[in-house]
Amino acid sequence: MTVLQERWQELADVKDELALRDWFMGTSGNLAIKVQDSPTEFLVTASGKDKRKRTAEDFLLVDANGQAIEDTHLKPSAETLLHCEVYTKTAAGCSLHIHTVANNVISEIYGNRGKIEFQGLELIKAFGLWDEDAVLTIPIIPNHAHIPDLAEEFQKHLHGDSGAVLIRNHGITVWGKNAFEAKKLLEASEFLFQYQLALYQIQSQ
Amino acid sequence: MTVLQERWQELADVKDELALRDWFMGTSGNLAIKVQDSPTEFLVTASGKDKRKRTAEDFLLVDANGQAIEDTHLKPSAETLLHCEVYTKTAAGCSLHIHTVANNVISEIYGNRGKIEFQGLELIKAFGLWDEDAVLTIPIIPNHAHIPDLAEEFQKHLHGDSGAVLIRNHGITVWGKNAFEAKKLLEASEFLFQYQLALYQIQSQ
Amino acid sequence: MTVLQERWQELADVKDELALRDWFMGTSGNLAIKVQDSPTEFLVTASGKDKRKRTAEDFLLVDANGQAIEDTHLKPSAETLLHCEVYTKTAAGCSLHIHTVANNVISEIYGNRGKIEFQGLELIKAFGLWDEDAVLTIPIIPNHAHIPDLAEEFQKHLHGDSGAVLIRNHGITVWGKNAFEAKKLLEASEFLFQYQLALYQIQSQ
Amino acid sequence: MTVLQERWQELADVKDELALRDWFMGTSGNLAIKVQDSPTEFLVTASGKDKRKRTAEDFLLVDANGQAIEDTHLKPSAETLLHCEVYTKTAAGCSLHIHTVANNVISEIYGNRGKIEFQGLELIKAFGLWDEDAVLTIPIIPNHAHIPDLAEEFQKHLHGDSGAVLIRNHGITVWGKNAFEAKKLLEASEFLFQYQLALYQIQSQ
Repeated sequence: MTVLQERWQELADVKDELALRDWFMGTSGNLAIKVQDSPTEFLVTASGKDKRKRTAEDFLLVDANGQAIEDTHLKPSAETLLHCEVYTKTAAGCSLHIHTVANNVISEIYGNRGKIEFQGLELIKAFGLWDEDAVLTIPIIPNHAHIPDLAEEFQKHLHGDSGAVLIRNHGITVWGKNAFEAKKLLEASEFLFQYQLALYQIQSQ
Repeated sequence: MTVLQERWQELADVKDELALRDWFMGTSGNLAIKVQDSPTEFLVTASGKDKRKRTAEDFLLVDANGQAIEDTHLKPSAETLLHCEVYTKTAAGCSLHIHTVANNVISEIYGNRGKIEFQGLELIKAFGLWDEDAVLTIPIIPNHAHIPDLAEEFQKHLHGDSGAVLIRNHGITVWGKNAFEAKKLLEASEFLFQYQLALYQIQSQ
Repeated sequence: MTVLQERWQELADVKDELALRDWFMGTSGNLAIKVQDSPTEFLVTASGKDKRKRTAEDFLLVDANGQAIEDTHLKPSAETLLHCEVYTKTAAGCSLHIHTVANNVISEIYGNRGKIEFQGLELIKAFGLWDEDAVLTIPIIPNHAHIPDLAEEFQKHLHGDSGAVLIRNHGITVWGKNAFEAKKLLEASEFLFQYQLALYQIQSQ
Repeated sequence: MTVLQERWQELADVKDELALRDWFMGTSGNLAIKVQDSPTEFLVTASGKDKRKRTAEDFLLVDANGQAIEDTHLKPSAETLLHCEVYTKTAAGCSLHIHTVANNVISEIYGNRGKIEFQGLELIKAFGLWDEDAVLTIPIIPNHAHIPDLAEEFQKHLHGDSGAVLIRNHGITVWGKNAFEAKKLLEASEFLFQYQLALYQIQSQ
C-alpha cells in the first residue's frame, strides 16, 4: 500500500466512524489528512457527497493552496482553505471539522467571551494537559461567510501542532499529529461541550 | 436497472438510514419519491409496515391523486395526499415526512407564532441560504385529523422546489430535487431544532 | 416452522431491536409472547441473561401461572406474573416490559397523580385514538417489591386487548395483539414521554 | 480455549459493546479481567489504543502490582493501580472504568457531599438491593493527578466483591464477580445517573 492509499484508508475509517455518530448532519463537515511535505499535499473531502457512504470519490488530493493536483471533476470542500492553514503553519498530519449540536450551542453561549475554558476535568488530558491545575482554553472565533476571511481569523489560533478552534455557530476544527490524535481531540472536545451544557442547564437555575 | 428500480432502491436506502436513527417511532412517518412526470407517478410507503425491515412490500406506485397504479393489496400511507401536493405543485423529486421529539416540541413551542426562524447558523446553508444575514423561515401549520384539510393547509407553503413545513405535534415534511437533497434538508432541520431546544433550555432561565 | 418457532423468532427479533436501543440496561426488562390458547402457553425471557446476545436459552415456555412447561434449568423472569395477568385477562398476543430514563422520570414526576395524559399529539394514533380531541391516558401504579402485589395492582388496568401501564420508577409494560402491535405502543409511549420531558424542562421555567 | 483466551474474549466483547455506546471518548477508560489467583494475574487495556478497534494488542497480562508479566512493548493503562487494588482487596473477577457525560456531571454536582444515594428505584436491584426501602450509596472521591494517591483514596471504598466508586470529573469504576456482573453495575449506574440528571433539571427549577 502506498502512503497515499494508507492515508486514504485512515481518513475513510475516521469518516465512517464520525458518520455513524451523525456528526455530518445536512452534509456539513470536512476532513483532511496530509500525504507528504515539501511540497505539501493532502487529501480533503470532496464537496457535495453523502459522508455515510464509502466511495472512490470521497476525497481528492490538493496542494498547499487547496488546488486539485490531478485533473478531476471533484471539487474540494468549500472550507479547504482552513485545512491549508493547518498544513502550512503547523506540523499536524490530520485536521477535522464537524458540527454537533453541543459544539454549536457552546460556541453561541460563550461566543462573546471569545473562548471557553475547562479545568479540573480528567478529559483535558487528551490535550496533553496533565497538571492538576491545568486549564484548557478553546478559542471561539466569529463566523464569516467569506472563507478567506474565516481562514485568516482561524490561522491566528494555530499555536501548536495540535489544537482546537470553535467557529461561532459553525462547528469545531481540530488538528493533530495524525488521524488517531485528531480524532482524540475531537471526541474529548465533544465530551467537554456536552458536559458543560448539562452543567449549565442545572447551575444557571 | 429501470428508473423504477433505481428510485425504489434510493428510497429504501433513505428508509434504512432514517430507521437506524429511530425517526419512525410507533410506525410514524412516510416517504415518497417521484418515478416519472406526465403523468406523475411516485413511490410511497405502504401503510402499517415496520420501517426497520427492508421488504418487497415497503412501497407502492401511485398516481398524482395517490391512487395505486397497479392492482395490489397494499395501501398507501394515510398522508399520501401531502406527497401528491408536492409532486403536483413543484418540480421536487422526493418528499419525506418524519417525527422526532425535537421537531414535535419545537412545533408546539413556536406553534402559535406560525413559524420558526433561524439566522447566523452555518447549517442554514443546507437550504441554499449563503448570505451572512440570511434568515431561514420554517412555517408551522396546525394539525388536522382530516387529511384533505391538512393537505390543503400544507400546499399553501409549497413555494419552491425544495423546502420544509412543520405540522404542529405532527412532525416535519421536507421536499427536494432528489433523495439526497431531501435528506439533507431533513438532517439540517433536525440539527437546527435540537440546537434551538438546547439554547431555549438555557436562555429562558 | 412451527408456531412455537415462529413466535420465538418474532420475540427474538423484538429483543434484538430493543437491545440495540439500550432499553435493557442493567439486565432490566422482560418480554413475553403467546404461543397458544386453551390452555395458555407463552414464551417469556429467562432470568439473568444478557439481552444483547441471541441464544437458544433466551426464552422458556410457561403456562398461565408462569410455571415452566418443560423440564429446564432456566428460570422465568421474576416479573412473569404480570405477563400471566395479560394473557389471562385479555386476548393480547405479546407483552413487553422495559426501563428507559424517560419512562422512569415521567413515572416519578406524575406518580402522585396516578396517570399521565396526552392530547393533540399525532403519535397517540398509535393507540388507536383518531379523534381530534382524543385523550390518551396512561395509568401510573405504585411499585411493590413483592411481585404478586404488583401483579394485583397491575391487573386492575387491563381494560382492553392493548394498552400500557407505567410502574413508578419501574418502567412500562405494554401489551397488544402481536409483537408488531406491542412494539408500536412501546415506541409511541417512549416518544411521548421524551416529548413531555423536553417540554416540561422548558415550560416549568 | 485456555482460561486466558476465554477471559481475553470476554473482555474484548465488553470493550466492543461499551465502544459502540461511545463510553471511551478521547481514548478515556480502561478495563481489566482477572485470569488467575495466587499469584494474581489479570488482563488490562494497553495504553494509547483506539478502543473501537479489536486487535491482538488491546490487552496485556500484568501481576498484582500492575507489572507486565511477559516481555512486551505494550504499556498498561495509566490507571492500572486501581485495578490492582480491586484484585488485591476483593474477590472480584472484572473491573471497568469509563467516562460518560452523566457520570462526570453527577460527580461534580454531588462531589462536595462525597456520595450520591438512590432509593425507591427498581434499577438499584442490579446492586443486589431487593428491600423496598433499600438505599444505594455510591461514594464520590476527589480526583488526584498522581495515580498512587488516587488508588489509595479509591481502595478505602472497596468494601465488597462488587461495587462502584465515582471519581470527581474522572468517571466511574465498577467491579464485580465477572464481566457480566461488572457490566450490569456499569449499565445500572449510568441509568441512575441519567435519571437523576433529568430529574434535577426539572425539580431544581
